[in-house]
Formats: sequence, structure tokens, C-alpha cells
Amino acid sequence: MGPRRGVAVLGSTGSIGVQTLDLLARFPERFEVVALAAGRNADLLAQQVLLHRPALVAIGDSRRRDALAAAAGEAGSELVTGLEGLLAVATHPRADVVLAGIVGAAGLLPTYEALRAGRTVALANKESLVMAGALMQQAAARSGGTLIPVDSEHSALHQCLRGASMDHVRRLILTASGGPFRTTPRERLEKVTPEEAVRHPVWDMGPKISVDSATLMNKGLEVIEAHWLFGLPGNRVDVVLHPQSTVHSMVEMVDGSVISQMGVPDMRGPIQYALAFPDRFPGPVPAPDLPAIGTLEFFPVDRDRFPCLSIAYDALAVGGTAPAVLNAANEIAVEAFLDRRLPFTGIARVVAGALGRHRPGPAETMDEVMDADRWARRAAGELLAQGG
Amino acid sequence: MGPRRGVAVLGSTGSIGVQTLDLLARFPERFEVVALAAGRNADLLAQQVLLHRPALVAIGDSRRRDALAAAAGEAGSELVTGLEGLLAVATHPRADVVLAGIVGAAGLLPTYEALRAGRTVALANKESLVMAGALMQQAAARSGGTLIPVDSEHSALHQCLRGASMDHVRRLILTASGGPFRTTPRERLEKVTPEEAVRHPVWDMGPKISVDSATLMNKGLEVIEAHWLFGLPGNRVDVVLHPQSTVHSMVEMVDGSVISQMGVPDMRGPIQYALAFPDRFPGPVPAPDLPAIGTLEFFPVDRDRFPCLSIAYDALAVGGTAPAVLNAANEIAVEAFLDRRLPFTGIARVVAGALGRHRPGPAETMDEVMDADRWARRAAGELLAQGG
Repeated sequence: MGPRRGVAVLGSTGSIGVQTLDLLARFPERFEVVALAAGRNADLLAQQVLLHRPALVAIGDSRRRDALAAAAGEAGSELVTGLEGLLAVATHPRADVVLAGIVGAAGLLPTYEALRAGRTVALANKESLVMAGALMQQAAARSGGTLIPVDSEHSALHQCLRGASMDHVRRLILTASGGPFRTTPRERLEKVTPEEAVRHPVWDMGPKISVDSATLMNKGLEVIEAHWLFGLPGNRVDVVLHPQSTVHSMVEMVDGSVISQMGVPDMRGPIQYALAFPDRFPGPVPAPDLPAIGTLEFFPVDRDRFPCLSIAYDALAVGGTAPAVLNAANEIAVEAFLDRRLPFTGIARVVAGALGRHRPGPAETMDEVMDADRWARRAAGELLAQGG
Repeated sequence: MGPRRGVAVLGSTGSIGVQTLDLLARFPERFEVVALAAGRNADLLAQQVLLHRPALVAIGDSRRRDALAAAAGEAGSELVTGLEGLLAVATHPRADVVLAGIVGAAGLLPTYEALRAGRTVALANKESLVMAGALMQQAAARSGGTLIPVDSEHSALHQCLRGASMDHVRRLILTASGGPFRTTPRERLEKVTPEEAVRHPVWDMGPKISVDSATLMNKGLEVIEAHWLFGLPGNRVDVVLHPQSTVHSMVEMVDGSVISQMGVPDMRGPIQYALAFPDRFPGPVPAPDLPAIGTLEFFPVDRDRFPCLSIAYDALAVGGTAPAVLNAANEIAVEAFLDRRLPFTGIARVVAGALGRHRPGPAETMDEVMDADRWARRAAGELLAQGG
């Protein structure tokens, strides 16, 4: 074993962040937590600071600074706030790996800056690639930074592609559990509640991503993420329903051979893989017990009942600012659904409506991306005001 | 694409040989058939000679020389016979890859000589490794030769291990279709016929290997083969039943991640992989269509109903000449079963009986291996004479 790897965690109080810290606490001889950042949850962040004693801690919401001051003082951690605080964590000089675990568009800039600083980025924030994939890859190429996916599907693809030549790959096949409404009839979908939508059958995740799983927009965002991570066009990234979520994804080779990665549904598996890469070591996640699981099922996706998937493919095909608009409009629509201001089926309508009004342009600068993001939020808001 | 790869085929008229030639005929720009060898089937070999026009052709049974002479003359192929003929094909100077497709112990020496000559050996003859694994690996290490497995399970493992460090592997998991008697009650097994035993539910194979699949001895031989190919002890090579034979095998990593390879049950897939390695190209074998397949099942193996598997593990644990005795006694017992001189359940009894009488010794020279093989055939014959 080499020297300890310094880890900075962006979004340490979120679902991925908490699981990352659980893992890091188990392997103090391998990892050192050098910096932590969260958006608002100062209480949990304070606990994490006392436990992990990072050199640097940041809270995005500056008004929560005082709630952290005592813990930071006791732990000897430097305390910073706001976007600049997040960026300081993202580029901490002692961070070898930056876990990008902030959900949504808010994670874009810190993730980008970590890559620009040449860090290895363990990417749980798929929105960064959906919104600004070209910029991200350019930043990595220029700085020597590396992106290692944390999404279980993309972690699976990364693992399946080790030792493979991309020339030998015919297509990537993302598996989708199908979410809580996999078998729900079309008529019923109009009436499902936020409580039903966040009750994911397999994975334990935050509310936004749980709703995205229920609409399959999450899979659409993952198709776009896979495009940027692995360099294949959308028509060579497919989706298959697999309710057991044991096969996390697959790579189909040109000779008809399919390599897949399987695992239990525990995000600490992909997180550990990304933090340890290229090493592997025994961790808390057991291997799947296939005779105990018994049956793995695979179904085609019903794109009529889950239109968000096709909308995402279309946005990827249009390219430029379209995926950023897709993502932003979806964030607004999901928020409205969770607030009971929009029916479940309205999410696809709002996103499609925003994309329909959008005049796509290049997404070659961060300004162009952020402008498209703001435009889409406004457009989605207007569509909501008109009744979704 | 580089220059054409020269291929010699040992056992060209057998099941694997025929499928290999089917494949080679499709890609004349990639492969050149430089030498062919078969045991007895001179008629089919003559047809193959006329079609592929190899520089050299060998028939093991010298009495069949005349049946080949006309075809060899017309094709301009040099004609050789007997064991020396087989060895000349195995070490042909223009063969980059030697497909070792002779079934059973008869394949041992030609395979060994191909490795000793530094060839890349596409290994379908698992008996070589079962009988003389240490010698084979030693020959490869000394000559710079390479073994690439053709068995679908080991091809799967080879593919899953590309880019992986063996330090990261916890265990190999071989899948077994379970054969035609997967669900047959114990009492019925005593009475099954050769016709029922060779009717394999998934793979189309020769009679010997079909019977081995029905007893699960084939899986036992594969455990030993995997041990020699990948260097793990028997207690880190497991077997799981998987009736659909879509997942061809799996590698469980120390971190709980499982990499698997899937394919349709068509041996041309693994054959193409072995001949083309490290390249891959589109061939005749389609990728599995998982939504069409629908369901993949996994069960534990019932070692009581299929005692051959445990007998094979035991022989591997004993080591030395024990696996050679296992293999030879099994060949005699399967022959007796196919001739209706032994009930199906007698196969395990004969093999266990021969191993029970055997005093294991080192298998460090070819003489020691061949002596053990001869001893076991005699011992199995005696057990049969005593009524199995």
C-alpha cells in the first residue's frame, strides 16, 4: 500500500457524501479526509468535521457559518463559505481525489474546477457532464485530471472496459431498475404521489434522483453521461430494464461477447471503486449471492409510458445547450412535482415544452452553459405557471 | 489489420475443429489455414483439405492414408500420418496459432509440443491441463508460448480478467448449464440412457463431452483447467448452475464486484476470441438479446446427485498424478456408459474407485503422466470387469 490518499468530499451531507464518509472512516490507513463541503446542513457537517478533522471545511450557505464555527475550531479545520468555499474544497492542494457528490446544477462549477486543477474526480454529479460534457472533458485533457464515475451504471461500464479497446465496443447497455412504476398502467401514472415516487424498489437515494428514476429521466441523463465518459454516440448507448439491479450495466463487443458487472445495490461499492482506482481491496460491500438471488430478469423499456427517456436521447442528438436545458427544466419540474404543483406525467411535458421553445446554441463556454441553464429554469417556470 | 495469421487445427473433423474451419473460411483476409490434423475421419478431412488447401495435412490413423492421398495431391498439401504427423501439424513453422481441438488424452502430446514450440495455443483440449497442467505451464514459460482457452467458461474468465490484477480476484465462478439431468430425481439417474445423456439442452457437442456435462464431470475438469490457467487453488474456483448458459462465467473481485461475460451458446464465439486475441472483430455470432431471453436463473449445485464434481475437486486437492487418473478413469467409464456396459451412476463409482486405489505421485515428467494415465485405464477396466 502506498501513502494515504487525500480525499475531498463535495456534498458530504448528501446521500453519496454520507456513504463516502462511512467508507473513509473504515480505512484510515488508506484515506485521509482533507476537505469537506456541504450546502446547508450545518448540523450534520459539524458532526462530520468533529469525526474526520479535515484541514478545510466549507458550507455553501454563508448564513450557516456560525453553526459550524465551534466544530471547526475544535477540529482545527479552516472554515470557508459560499461558492468560493466550495471551490476551495474542490481544489484543495492535498486532495488526490475529489468526490463530486453535490446533486444537480449546483455541483457543476466545483466539479469543473476540480478537474481543471488536475484532480482525479470521483463523479457522482452526473449533471456536470449532462450540462457541460465537452467543457469537462476539455478541462481534464488540459490539466491531466481524470473522471471516474460513481454512478453504479457507469462504474460498471468503467470496470467492464478495463483492458478493452474502445474500437472493440459495439454498444454500451445501461440497466434500469424501472423504478417504482415499472408496471404501473399509463392511466394511473397521472395520479401517483411524491411519496410513491420516492419509494424506490432497490436503491436508497435522495428525493430528486428517486423521482428521476421513476420517470426514467435519470436513465436519460445517464445515457448522456455515458456518451461523455466513454465517447460513444447516443445511438450506441442502450437501456434495458432489469428490476433486480444486480447487473449494473454491460458492454457489448463487436464480436457478440457481452461483459457485464454485477454487484449488490449498495453505492459504497462504486464509491470505493472510484476512490481506490486502480486498486481494489476488501470493503464493507459483499458480493452478490447469485444462487440466493435466483432470477435476473430483463425487459425492453416502454418508451410510451416513460417519455423522458426519448426526450433525453433527443436532447443528446441535438447537442450544444440542449442537454443543459433538459437538465434544468427537469430540476424545476421535479421540484414542482415534489411540491404537488405538477402531476407526475407533467414532468415530461414541462421538459419537452422547454426544449421545444429552446433555440439550441453552442455549449463551449461556462457562460453559454449557465445562460442555457437559467433560460431553461425560467421557461420551465413559465410553463408551470401556465398549468404544466 | 496486420498480416494474415497462420492457423493449424488439431482435430479438424471434430465438433470444435469443424466450427473453427467454418469461422476461418469466413475470414480469409485475416487467417490462413496452414495445417490440418484429424484422427480417423479421412473423408471429412479430405473435403477440408480441398477447401482450405493447407500446406500440411496429417491423419493419426496411418491406415487411412490412402483415403486422403488424392485430395492432398490435388490441394498440393504434404501428407503425413501417425503421432508424428500430428506433432508436425502442432509445430508447423507457419502456424502462429494452434487450435488444440483433439478430444481427450490423445490431444495431450500435440498440445504440449505446440506450446514447447512457442506457439499461441487456442486450447479446446482441457484434458491437457487436467493431466499435465504443471508441465504445460512450464513449457509455455520456457518457450514464450501462450495458452488461450476455448472452453466457453474459461474464455469468459479470460475476457473478464483482461486488465485485471490477479491480486484483486477473490474467486472464479464457473457456470454450469446443469446438463440434461439437472432436475432428474436421484432414483431415475441410475436408469438414464446414452441417448438421453447426449441430448444436451443448450450446447451442441460431441458425445464424450455431452456425457461429461450430464455427470458434471465436465465442470470438475473445468475447475482443474481453471486452476492451471489462472493460478488459483480449487477452493477459490466455484461452480453455480445457470440453465440458460448465457452468463458463461464470472470473476468475483475482493471488493465484492463481479465481472461476467455473456454470450449466445455458439462455440464459434470463444473460438473466434482465441484465434483473434487480442483483437476482436464482427463475426457470425450475434450478441445475446437479453430482453428476448428474459430470465437468467442461478442455482446451487446438488453435489449429492452429481458426485463427479466433488471427486474432481478432491483429485485437484491431492494433486500430482491424481487429476490424470481422474481423467483417464472417466474416459473409460464414459465409453462403457455409451456402450451400455455401465449405468450412468456407475461413472462416478468407477472414477472414485480408480482414485481410491491410486497411490498418487509427482506429475513432473510426461512419462509420469502417461504412466498414471495407463494405470488408471487398466484400473478402471478392472473395476468395470468387476461390474462397475
